Amino acid sequence: MSKFLLTLAYHGAGFCGFQVQKQQRSIQSTMQDAIEQIYGERLPVVGCSRTDAGVHARDYKLTFVTDQSHPCIQLQRIPMALNAALPSDIAVLDAEEVPLDFHVRHDVYEKEYEYLIHDGPIRSPFYTDTVYHYKHRLDAEKLNAAAQAFLGTHDFRGFMAAGSDIGDTVRTVHSVRVFRSNDGLIHIRISANGFLYNMVRIIVGTLLAVAEGRIDSDSLSSVIDSGDRTRAGITVPAHGLYLNRVEFLRKEK
Amino acid sequence: MSKFLLTLAYHGAGFCGFQVQKQQRSIQSTMQDAIEQIYGERLPVVGCSRTDAGVHARDYKLTFVTDQSHPCIQLQRIPMALNAALPSDIAVLDAEEVPLDFHVRHDVYEKEYEYLIHDGPIRSPFYTDTVYHYKHRLDAEKLNAAAQAFLGTHDFRGFMAAGSDIGDTVRTVHSVRVFRSNDGLIHIRISANGFLYNMVRIIVGTLLAVAEGRIDSDSLSSVIDSGDRTRAGITVPAHGLYLNRVEFLRKEK
Repeated sequence: MSKFLLTLAYHGAGFCGFQVQKQQRSIQSTMQDAIEQIYGERLPVVGCSRTDAGVHARDYKLTFVTDQSHPCIQLQRIPMALNAALPSDIAVLDAEEVPLDFHVRHDVYEKEYEYLIHDGPIRSPFYTDTVYHYKHRLDAEKLNAAAQAFLGTHDFRGFMAAGSDIGDTVRTVHSVRVFRSNDGLIHIRISANGFLYNMVRIIVGTLLAVAEGRIDSDSLSSVIDSGDRTRAGITVPAHGLYLNRVEFLRKEK
Repeated sequence: MSKFLLTLAYHGAGFCGFQVQKQQRSIQSTMQDAIEQIYGERLPVVGCSRTDAGVHARDYKLTFVTDQSHPCIQLQRIPMALNAALPSDIAVLDAEEVPLDFHVRHDVYEKEYEYLIHDGPIRSPFYTDTVYHYKHRLDAEKLNAAAQAFLGTHDFRGFMAAGSDIGDTVRTVHSVRVFRSNDGLIHIRISANGFLYNMVRIIVGTLLAVAEGRIDSDSLSSVIDSGDRTRAGITVPAHGLYLNRVEFLRKEK
C-alpha cells in the first residue's frame, strides 16, 4: 500500500470547490476521474481544505492511497501522466510518496492565502475571474500597517461566515502583508495555522472598510476582540482568492 | 460632426477578431452595440488593425463619428458609459476627440506587439488562453541577441501567412526585445511601422526554431532575406499575442 501526496494548481472559475457536489464540477471528482484513468480504479482522494466555488489554488495538497503493490507508474512520471488526463484549468505540479499515517489536513502546520485586488476606476478584461476589481485607489502601506492588528492568536469568530458550526474559533495568524506588486495589483497575503470559513475574505473586506474610513484602524483590534460579525467588513468575492502555500509538520517517508 | 478615438483593452478568447463575421462575436459588432446603446444610433467604427481570433489587446484604437452637434455625453464620461454597456472581456480605457481627417490606420506611426511564453514542463491553469505554453526552458538573453536580426527595414514576405494579398511586404522593425519578467514569463516585444499578417507569430516561431537549434542564429539574416516562408519557423498560436501599443503621427484636434 502506498500513499501519494499531489501538489495541484487550479483556476477556480470552472469548479464548485473541492468537494463533490451533484451535477457540478468539483476538484475532487475531476481528480478522481484522472486518477482512475491512470490507475484503472476509482480511488478516494483527501484534500487539504474545502475551497469555495471560484477560489483558485497555486499550491493545493491532496492524497490518495493505492494498494497496488507495484504501482504501474513511476513516481516522477505521475504529474505528466495525470496532466495528460486532466482538463486545462487544473494541473498536477508535483507528486511524492508519504507515510501511510500522514494526514493532509491534520498535519498542516501553516497555510497561506493571497487575495488580489485591481484598484482603479476601469475594470480590466484580463482580471474578470482572477482579480477583484475595486474602483478606488488603495494605499498599500497604510493597509499593511492596519493589517498587523490581525497578527497573533485571536478568537476569530467575528470573521467567520454565519452558520459555520466550528467549535474552536481560535486561530494564530503567523504573518500578514499588504503590498503592491510590479504589475500594479494589491496583494494581501496571510499565513496562519488554520482559517475559519470565509476568514480571509472577511479580513480583506474589513481592510477595505478601513481604507474607506468606515472602520478606524486604531479600533481594528477591538473589532477583532468583539467577536461580532456585524462589526467586521463584507465578505469580498471568491474570485480574488488564492490558496498560495501549505506547509506540513513532517511528510518524509 | 465629431470624431472620437477610443482606447480599448480586450481578452481575445471570446472574440473572432476585430471584423464583423456572421454568427460570431467580433470586437467591431460588440463596440457598435455598446455605442448604439449610448448614442441611440448605429455608428460605424474603424479599427487600427484586424486582429485574429484569440489575440488580445492592451491598447487597441478605434474611431467613430457622430453628427450629433451636441454630443449627449461629456468626453470624460464616455469610457464609464460604454463600459457599463460592454461585456466583461472588453473595456474602454480612454476617449478623446480627434480631427475629422484623422485616420486610425493610415496615421499609425508605430505599433508594438508582445508575445508571452510560459516555458516549463508543466502547463499552468492560469495561462490557458493568455500565455503560450512551451515545454522546454528558454534562454532569454540568447534569444534576445538572435532576435536583433529582425531590426531595421526588410522585405518580410517570408514572415507572412500564405495567401495574403498584400503588395508591399517591406516593413521597418524599430525595436525587438526578448526578456524574462519577474513572474517568470518570457516576453517577446516587437515594435514596427507596420506588420504583415501573422508576422509576429512567425517571428516568434522562428526564434523558437533558433532555440531548438533548427535554425542557426548566424543564418537568421539569410532566412529573412530569402523571403522563403518555408525557411522560417511555425506560426505560434494566437492566444499568446497582445497588441500592446499604437502610436500616431499626430492626433491633436
